[in-house]
This record gives sequence, structure tokens and C-alpha cells, in this order.
Amino acid sequence: MRASPTTPYLAVDGARLDANVRRVQAAADRAGVRLRPHVKTHKVPAIARRQLDAGAVGITVATVGEAEVFVDQGCTDVLVAYPVFLDAERVRRVLALADRARVVIGVDSVDGARRAAPLTGAVGVAVEVDSGHHRSGIAPAQAGAVALAAADLGVAVEGVFTFPGHAYAPGAAPEVAAQEAAALHEAATVVVAAGIPCPVRSGGSTPSLAASLDSGAARPGGTPAADELRPGVYVFGDAQQWELGHHAAEDIALVAVGTVVSHAGGRAVLDAGSKTLGADRAAYATGFGRLLDHPEARIVQLSEHHAVVDLAGASLPAVGERVRVVPNHVCAAVNLADELVVDGERVPVAARGRNT
Amino acid sequence: MRASPTTPYLAVDGARLDANVRRVQAAADRAGVRLRPHVKTHKVPAIARRQLDAGAVGITVATVGEAEVFVDQGCTDVLVAYPVFLDAERVRRVLALADRARVVIGVDSVDGARRAAPLTGAVGVAVEVDSGHHRSGIAPAQAGAVALAAADLGVAVEGVFTFPGHAYAPGAAPEVAAQEAAALHEAATVVVAAGIPCPVRSGGSTPSLAASLDSGAARPGGTPAADELRPGVYVFGDAQQWELGHHAAEDIALVAVGTVVSHAGGRAVLDAGSKTLGADRAAYATGFGRLLDHPEARIVQLSEHHAVVDLAGASLPAVGERVRVVPNHVCAAVNLADELVVDGERVPVAARGRNT
Repeated sequence: MRASPTTPYLAVDGARLDANVRRVQAAADRAGVRLRPHVKTHKVPAIARRQLDAGAVGITVATVGEAEVFVDQGCTDVLVAYPVFLDAERVRRVLALADRARVVIGVDSVDGARRAAPLTGAVGVAVEVDSGHHRSGIAPAQAGAVALAAADLGVAVEGVFTFPGHAYAPGAAPEVAAQEAAALHEAATVVVAAGIPCPVRSGGSTPSLAASLDSGAARPGGTPAADELRPGVYVFGDAQQWELGHHAAEDIALVAVGTVVSHAGGRAVLDAGSKTLGADRAAYATGFGRLLDHPEARIVQLSEHHAVVDLAGASLPAVGERVRVVPNHVCAAVNLADELVVDGERVPVAARGRNT
Repeated sequence: MRASPTTPYLAVDGARLDANVRRVQAAADRAGVRLRPHVKTHKVPAIARRQLDAGAVGITVATVGEAEVFVDQGCTDVLVAYPVFLDAERVRRVLALADRARVVIGVDSVDGARRAAPLTGAVGVAVEVDSGHHRSGIAPAQAGAVALAAADLGVAVEGVFTFPGHAYAPGAAPEVAAQEAAALHEAATVVVAAGIPCPVRSGGSTPSLAASLDSGAARPGGTPAADELRPGVYVFGDAQQWELGHHAAEDIALVAVGTVVSHAGGRAVLDAGSKTLGADRAAYATGFGRLLDHPEARIVQLSEHHAVVDLAGASLPAVGERVRVVPNHVCAAVNLADELVVDGERVPVAARGRNT
């Protein structure tokens, strides 16, 4: 199909996407670290295929629903990096996936590990630990008890994982990557001390990625860093990564194409609002999104269908002109869209809204 | 269909919804003001039907795409309260709607009015003016020139409208409602002075609603207030309205049902994150959403699939327990969901994602 000429829509530059995929894969390969990209960023099986073809060992998802979409499209190695609550329905769904793929799900408590008993022989678990982001994840020192609870019931323990989400702050990446490595090391150590092999130490986020790879090569005292990383955003980049210095503007592969609809108040008002871009605005963000072709401009006000742009003194684009907007958080923007326009072709966002 | 037992999902209490619809309609009726609800909040034709059956004169939408969904489902009177950029494709789509419904679209500039020329005889325009929110909308004093530009080309001018969105701030409603009334009065006056009838003065938002209705009855000096109001959120309510004091907790008709998935860090972590609730967080908001049954609790951290709740000293709900979360901004939450569960029945969010 040809691209929609109607704005707003999300446009992907396939060459930039491939370059991002290859660049990060090559960096991981050089460091001897496996890449298991988080596909919640793009939610498109064909993009996961590009990542796997480039050398990724498998994919990461956040929900069983996402796993179902990607396994249906041929992905055969999936980590659900989330402490899934295993009620009867989710046990049934997870077991159905295991017929077609190697599936591992997260647990972050002894009780959670025990609830995984029905998965024995079909699906493994990985123990989520908290490396400082303070979201889900047990303290690393307690990972052994969780692993033991699973192993005692016969559930395969695949390793430990953490999400160093506190790397989403200016200048935070080096320290956060060190915390990630330390947490994974401690967790793996206590798991092994409990008599359980721990072949996987999985970490990673896009902002901490480079620092994590560096720390693997240069760790003093021999503490092993992550041997697997799970970045998501790197395939596209977004305004957060741009502003944090982790993704160059010229490598940004996804933009929202919007139209100037008004010059009210002497500013450009675009039709790409929060229902297109998402409403994420981190404390460090300089606005509600950026304009790729006007780096000095800022989106100073965002409504559902309006983005009010301060052009910082530059002349206003004409009413009717199209502009390329870089969302603050690309995962949120993608999850609002039914399709991406990749090099002019409409591609369904197959896992959009698969929150369960 | 029976309701999904899998969280997270959005649940609507139909009795509360109906009570909200009836209460606001009755208040508008008492004030002699027409109600034209903004359906971008719910995006469900069956809910628009409840509003119309209660006495609404028509519906408001933000996009031509939303209009198409609702006209397809039998809505026959639609205001697109947005300065739609009328390229050839949108002209074609708007004219197609006019075969089945009375359609009026927004314009907020002389050039915009001129671009409406192809709509002559089929679709009317309304002039958007800025009453202080400083988004789209021309200065009220210039509304006459815009109306004249349309009328000179033969395009029907239906009136003037404004969105007093600056009412989304604590204590702002009375002053904002007065600004809304003054802006509509000035705009209507200059339109009439230009020799063009101005039968519609349309305003309204949920936070300013009560103040706008009050001002209509009690205006000193006889300045006419809005004669039509376009609130959206009032059908459900949300945490923003709760915190601003414009919607009582016991009248909230939509919640996200989430499950406690972790007690990491001694807090309750829910599976309803920003991909379910939306990421809106206004400056005045006390968190990323509220718990309907724990008014003291706050969502202190929000990720795509995690809401970290501080229970303010109350005992933690057990892992596996379900809780009712009130999104900060219900329009954003609804636009993330493929369906609402209304009194146990799954109802498609028919206009979800219709941003064009």
C-alpha cells in the first residue's frame, strides 16, 4: 500500500532503522554480549526479524499478549521481562506459547516463583532484581531464595535480569551501568551459591547501553557485567535519547509527520498532539517533543490534537506545511498508532495495545 | 460478550455514566444552554447515543476521522471543533460527511476561511477564538474578518467557539468562565457588526462547566455567556477532575482495573502502566493516577506496564489482588484501549486512534 498522505502519522526511515540495528548489534558483538532487543518499542514482527537477522539471540517483551503476537509471527525465543502474575488464564496462555517457542518469564518473589510451578518442564523463569530503579525486582541478595523456590518445584531457572531505568537522567549512565553490573553479579553469585546454575545475566536499556558495554570490557576486579542486554528504543531513537546524548539526531529513524494548522498567537500549531506523540515528559525534557528540522524549536504546549511550537525566532513554517516531529518517548508514540509508514509502506503495529 | 478477566482493562459503570450524562444535561437545560458533548473522551457511538437521547443537540469531535466514525453510526449533527487544514483530501472527506449529517468545521484565520470555499452550500464553518488558553483560535476582535472572508465566498458561518482549556488549574474556573463569556461576546459582536448573523456562541470544558452555567444566569451588565457548551470528560470523570474538585470520586464512571504484580520495595506494583493509563501529569496532579478505593494512596512512579503505588501507610493489597485505578486524564486512557468493558460487556472504542 502507498503511504497515507494525511497527517498526523508515524514515518520510519528503513535505512536509518537498519543502521541503528546493525550499529548496536556490532557494538554488542565486539563486547561479547548477547542482544535481546525489547520489541515493545516497535511492536512490529518485521522489525524484530531485522533485529534477529542482524544477530539478536531472541526478543524481549513486557506482556504475554506481546509474546503471543511475536510468536505467532515466528519468533522462537522470548523473554517476558516482567513479573507476570500467573493466574490460571495466563498459565494457559504461557503454556500455549511454549509449544512454539522457548519462553522465559520473570519472577521477583518467592511466592511468584511458586506460582510458576504449573510451567515446569515447559517454560523457564528468570529472577528480576532491582539495580536501583526501584520499580519491580527483588533485592539482589535475595535472588538465591527466589531461584531456589523455583528450582525446588522443578521449574527451570534461566538466570537473573534487571532493568536499569534510572539511566533515564542526564549523566546517569556510567554510574547506573556500574550498579547494573554489581546487581547482576551479586544476584548471579547468590543463585550459584544456592546450587543453581545461572547462565544468563541480563540487563540493559538504551541510555545505559554504551556504558554497560564499556563496563563489560573494563571492569576492575573482574566483576562480570551483563552478558545479555535488552535495549528497545535504539532502533528508532527519540527526543529523550537525543536530549540525553544517547542517540544522534541524524540517526533518528521515526518521526511523527504533522501539518501546521494555525499561526495563532504567532506560533506554529501542529496537528500532532498527545494522541499521536504521547504525553511523556521527563523532568529533564526541554519540551513535549522536538522538530527534527528545527533543532532550536520547542513544543511548549501539548493537547490531544495540538502541539504549539515556539520556533525560537526562526520564521514560522506556513500553514499547511508538513514538519517532522520527534516524540519524547517513541514507545508511547508507536503504541498510539495502528500503523507505521515504513519507507512509504503501511505496516500494522501488530502488538499495539497488547497490555495483558 | 463477557468481560475479559485479564488485567489491565478499562471498566465503565453504566449507571454512573448515565447519571453523569443526566446531571450535566439537566444543569445545561436549567441554564438554557445547549449541550454538544465532545465525544473524543469516550470515542464510542453508543455513549454518544446516550448523550443525544438525554438532550444533547449534537456532538463535538476533534478530527474528521472521528466525525466519520460517529456519522457512520448515525450521528447527524457534528461540530469539528478544530481548525482543520482543508487540503483536497479533507475537503473530499468533509463533503462526503455532509451527505448524511449537518457538519460544521472550525476556522481560525482569514486564509483558513478562504480554504473553506469548496464547502460552500454543504458544510458550515465556525470561527475559533482564543479566550486565554493560547492554543489555536484567533483574537476575538478579529473574528469578524474571518467570518466575512467565509461569507464573502458563500460559506455559511454558524457562529463562534472557544476552548477555555486554561480552566485546567486549581481555582481557575470562575475567572476562566468569565474570560470565555467575554471572548464569545466580543467575537459574536464583531461578527454581527460585519453583517453576519452569529447564532452560536460555543464554549465549554468539564472544569469550567459549572462556572460557565453560573455565569450565564448571573452576568452583570448583561454580557451574554456561551449558549452552547462542549464538555467531554464529565461522562466519566478522572483524577484530574477529582483533584480539581469538578467531579466527585463517587461519580467516577471509568476505572482501569489492574492487578498487583509485585511488592518490591514494600510498595504495590500494578500492571496498569502508562500504556493503559496514559502519561499525562499536569503540574497540579499529585501523582500519575489515583486508586478509587484508596483515596490516600498515590501512584508515585509510572512506566509502560508498571504503576508503583505508595499506600500512605495502609496495608498493601496482596499480590494478585485487583485494584481500581482512576487515570489522570481519561481521554488519553480511552484512546489507548481497543475496547471498554461497560457493565461487563465489551464495547469497541470505535474512534480510537482516529487522529486524521
